[in-house]
Amino acid sequence: MSKTRLEAFSDGVLAVAITLLVLDLHVDPGRPGGLFAQLAAEWPSFVAYVVSFLVIGVIWVNHHAVVRLVEVVDRLLLFWNLMLLMFVTTLPFTTATLSAALAGGDPGDIRLAVVLYGGAMTGVAIAFTLLHGRITAQEVASGRLDAAGRRRSLIRFGAGTVLYPAMTAIGLVSAPAMLALAAALSLYYLFNQTGAREDDPALGEKQP
Amino acid sequence: MSKTRLEAFSDGVLAVAITLLVLDLHVDPGRPGGLFAQLAAEWPSFVAYVVSFLVIGVIWVNHHAVVRLVEVVDRLLLFWNLMLLMFVTTLPFTTATLSAALAGGDPGDIRLAVVLYGGAMTGVAIAFTLLHGRITAQEVASGRLDAAGRRRSLIRFGAGTVLYPAMTAIGLVSAPAMLALAAALSLYYLFNQTGAREDDPALGEKQP
Amino acid sequence: MSKTRLEAFSDGVLAVAITLLVLDLHVDPGRPGGLFAQLAAEWPSFVAYVVSFLVIGVIWVNHHAVVRLVEVVDRLLLFWNLMLLMFVTTLPFTTATLSAALAGGDPGDIRLAVVLYGGAMTGVAIAFTLLHGRITAQEVASGRLDAAGRRRSLIRFGAGTVLYPAMTAIGLVSAPAMLALAAALSLYYLFNQTGAREDDPALGEKQP
Amino acid sequence: MSKTRLEAFSDGVLAVAITLLVLDLHVDPGRPGGLFAQLAAEWPSFVAYVVSFLVIGVIWVNHHAVVRLVEVVDRLLLFWNLMLLMFVTTLPFTTATLSAALAGGDPGDIRLAVVLYGGAMTGVAIAFTLLHGRITAQEVASGRLDAAGRRRSLIRFGAGTVLYPAMTAIGLVSAPAMLALAAALSLYYLFNQTGAREDDPALGEKQP
Repeated sequence: MSKTRLEAFSDGVLAVAITLLVLDLHVDPGRPGGLFAQLAAEWPSFVAYVVSFLVIGVIWVNHHAVVRLVEVVDRLLLFWNLMLLMFVTTLPFTTATLSAALAGGDPGDIRLAVVLYGGAMTGVAIAFTLLHGRITAQEVASGRLDAAGRRRSLIRFGAGTVLYPAMTAIGLVSAPAMLALAAALSLYYLFNQTGAREDDPALGEKQP
Repeated sequence: MSKTRLEAFSDGVLAVAITLLVLDLHVDPGRPGGLFAQLAAEWPSFVAYVVSFLVIGVIWVNHHAVVRLVEVVDRLLLFWNLMLLMFVTTLPFTTATLSAALAGGDPGDIRLAVVLYGGAMTGVAIAFTLLHGRITAQEVASGRLDAAGRRRSLIRFGAGTVLYPAMTAIGLVSAPAMLALAAALSLYYLFNQTGAREDDPALGEKQP
Repeated sequence: MSKTRLEAFSDGVLAVAITLLVLDLHVDPGRPGGLFAQLAAEWPSFVAYVVSFLVIGVIWVNHHAVVRLVEVVDRLLLFWNLMLLMFVTTLPFTTATLSAALAGGDPGDIRLAVVLYGGAMTGVAIAFTLLHGRITAQEVASGRLDAAGRRRSLIRFGAGTVLYPAMTAIGLVSAPAMLALAAALSLYYLFNQTGAREDDPALGEKQP
Repeated sequence: MSKTRLEAFSDGVLAVAITLLVLDLHVDPGRPGGLFAQLAAEWPSFVAYVVSFLVIGVIWVNHHAVVRLVEVVDRLLLFWNLMLLMFVTTLPFTTATLSAALAGGDPGDIRLAVVLYGGAMTGVAIAFTLLHGRITAQEVASGRLDAAGRRRSLIRFGAGTVLYPAMTAIGLVSAPAMLALAAALSLYYLFNQTGAREDDPALGEKQP
């Protein structure tokens, strides 16, 4: 299995998933009250669209940073990558559910939708950490990384497995706060990518 | 026809098909009873989503393992590849039909949906075997494989053409059993890929 | 503009368009009469799915055969390629409209849907011929092809601009006959690709 | 981050977004009055489909022309690229909203839909200008471009940030005039691409 095709398929899935978010934006010209009232009632869809677009976009950036470390594409690596893509692909659904619940306004529905949304993101974080663990295990085996370096890297990279459940807990109190946190976390990861500091060759390398 | 573009197109179709599975997950905020009742009633959608995601993901892994053996992209090979993609692309439909039938609960509908779901997977297996047969015929012609090796390879690879109809027959008795079997078969193929043993260069080769 | 990125974008659009065909296959569990009656009433959707899948698949094969001749990606070439993709992308719509009209059974609606379906395919054929004309003009300019060779090539390649309107005219009498013809033409083009005979390097070249 | 994967992901998103435009074309066989009346009432969908297809197609051409200048894929560049893709991805929604409003005929709804449509395109233009500014800043830093050249390039490239709001203002008076302008601007940019004159190597370079 070549790394190129692993990247091509993952890029394809992530590109489709991020673009399907737009299907949650729609108006129904048949409904009374005019377009403005409809768009105003649908504000959660627009906020959730921007947040989830950022989230998936940054997952793509991180996916690249992780996969570029791959030396050998083995089965376990393929499995964790598939699990990662499976959780990412649910985000158009959990995003639509959350915005529908927020537009509906029922507190119980909103809490359930928050758990789905945060749960999918936690699933992404867990799959990412397992994928990262598999890749860094390869690096230790080939002597490119020592065990202590791997531990530090995993702690930094695995932070999402704690941060996303915490974000979900906050969402049970305030769903908009969860959305704001999800956007902020994504921007933080984009500009301070784990394992890709300014002096790290992961970003900023010269193109031929 | 370059192999690269054959892979790019197939990866694209498989990536879109696997991501379209999410369109079967949806809630309708207008219905009475709350979000929890709706999600609970839709449990077959979630189970079928996970199973079909695994199925298409492993088809992608196998597709790569087979296509990397291609020496010459000829017309028959393109035709069988197109047939393979045609059956894979129906999986979002057969998945949605099966989960709708399971949610509805009518035994006749469930049996019909089981036949559609298992039928599409059998179609994939047949197209895969014909594609594999075409590629190994090329290998025999170029002396890279002998006739006995091709026969052994075809028997192992063609197992799906027997396994999927058997799985469908079991599904006529119990649809959930069929879904569990489909997931188990996919995981088995992922970790014990036909023609790609641990010592096979198909997986586990060093990346430059 | 690199040829690689032109191919990547075109492959992406064709892969999405061919996969979106599946969205026309759907069942509505709420309707009375059971799943079998619904599927039976929707037979045109299944036939049209297979035909349009073949049609777009063979457009992809031909697109590759044509684009590989490109020497210089200029603006006019990009424009005709965009027009080609625009007509191909309408095929999921014209396919859905034709199958809906056939399921509905109104003769006037069927004739109108036939004109839309055949019209989109004629649009594809015209854009393809213009793209091919632009590319062979480049070949003549660079001395790789003489004017007579270009004329012969255009006549063979441009046959679709006559065949698809003829096919549409037949469809006004019998829509199923048009679908059968569309499938037959696609298979003919797949196995006897214009400008890509058995001895032509377009297909059948050795992979490294 | 390699430029190749940045292009692959962007190509994927643009290819999906341009193809999703077709989902706004649909007929509902259940409605009375026949197919012709439905298609006639939906004329704005067809016009908007053609215009938005051209718009996204030319965004793709320009995206390529800009990204090929990239020397270093840094975080800010990834961010502006993501913002660009986010606005492009809303175009299937703003297109559908505009055509629904035009079909509905309410003047207030049409004006609001015009603002959404023109607003998304203005967002694309702003993100494009910021992306272009980041890339040309890299070029100045590496000595490939001087400050005056960058200024001239930015003025030409940033024209969209003025043209699209102007186009939107015209749309408040006449939505069809806005659509005609959007198509004309796209064709102008396709054939007279900013920073890619006939003598510019951005287009027209020989393929190996």
